[in-house]
Amino acid sequence: MKISARNSLKGKVEEVKEGVVTATIKMKIETPGEITATITKEAVEDLGLKVGDEVMAIIKSSEVMIAKK
Amino acid sequence: MKISARNSLKGKVEEVKEGVVTATIKMKIETPGEITATITKEAVEDLGLKVGDEVMAIIKSSEVMIAKK
Amino acid sequence: MKISARNSLKGKVEEVKEGVVTATIKMKIETPGEITATITKEAVEDLGLKVGDEVMAIIKSSEVMIAKK
Amino acid sequence: MKISARNSLKGKVEEVKEGVVTATIKMKIETPGEITATITKEAVEDLGLKVGDEVMAIIKSSEVMIAKK
Amino acid sequence: MKISARNSLKGKVEEVKEGVVTATIKMKIETPGEITATITKEAVEDLGLKVGDEVMAIIKSSEVMIAKK
Amino acid sequence: MKISARNSLKGKVEEVKEGVVTATIKMKIETPGEITATITKEAVEDLGLKVGDEVMAIIKSSEVMIAKK
Repeated sequence: MKISARNSLKGKVEEVKEGVVTATIKMKIETPGEITATITKEAVEDLGLKVGDEVMAIIKSSEVMIAKK
Repeated sequence: MKISARNSLKGKVEEVKEGVVTATIKMKIETPGEITATITKEAVEDLGLKVGDEVMAIIKSSEVMIAKK
Repeated sequence: MKISARNSLKGKVEEVKEGVVTATIKMKIETPGEITATITKEAVEDLGLKVGDEVMAIIKSSEVMIAKK
Repeated sequence: MKISARNSLKGKVEEVKEGVVTATIKMKIETPGEITATITKEAVEDLGLKVGDEVMAIIKSSEVMIAKK
Repeated sequence: MKISARNSLKGKVEEVKEGVVTATIKMKIETPGEITATITKEAVEDLGLKVGDEVMAIIKSSEVMIAKK
Repeated sequence: MKISARNSLKGKVEEVKEGVVTATIKMKIETPGEITATITKEAVEDLGLKVGDEVMAIIKSSEVMIAKK
């Protein structure tokens, strides 16, 4: 099964914190990988993004899914 | 400025591909970090998630933002 | 009132589970409809997506809204 | 491989429309399934959601992923 | 028709920029309203959020839908 | 630090409601600003969106982040 989502980062679960209907999972990324971001062209120009720039990928925790074999 | 988003991964831009209104950025994560995911408690039980499990964080590229100093 | 969101699936509420600030709703889709997905062109090529392919639409529950008349 | 995302709807690709960096996929859902939505408890109260209600699941196309075997 | 989404800001379209499959809409908010954000409790503590704080609501443009009568 | 997210609305926290792992923040927007939405071109045509149209920006609360200095 292949998924269209471009980002999959391998790691180990460090913490499971359960609420009533939701839960937060903390995992440690073990091997540094590649991240793909789809943003507006306007943002690319506004930030002056170009190859070699030092940047941060910012991701809201509600947008992260967990997959397990 | 501090942001509520729990995930920020540091890296270097490898590719900038511009469309008409959107663009995709590929970046290489340099230092493995920690990822926080907010999922349903039902998913935690369904996957049997517990500390030490080998998992994958799956993230759609449209959910990734880029920040630059 | 028309909304830009491309997907609206009609159904009946089967379960309402309330937490402290969030809740999960389970609904049964009654009539099979059409789903539109916006993904990267790279994913289309990677999965070799073409008309007629048997696929799955995967959606995180935090991305689903509920509308009621 | 099991994923935390609660919603997976099976169907057949009807249209693939490619842009420069993104693409839209239209698929026909073949078998009506169940949808899980995580919303605020405030919304549950505001809409008066209860078992048996006729509702619509509304999903932005940028939140839909495609998986293929 | 009532929707579970907590945020609806009224305004006027200022710009429509079309790509091949996606488009960006710029609108001017006319009347200041209220914004609801669902974040992790950890973020509330990390930012020390309390009533009266001057803050910013940050929203990725791919998460904004447009509705029209 | 500049972020690719196109929308940042300034305001004051009015309410903080904590659950077990998530929380909802209500803030009052003080100065009306501009909103950018990325939607499908199909939606632009379906809604007949053009400059000057009175519209609503609809945003799910789980998509809103909070930033504080």
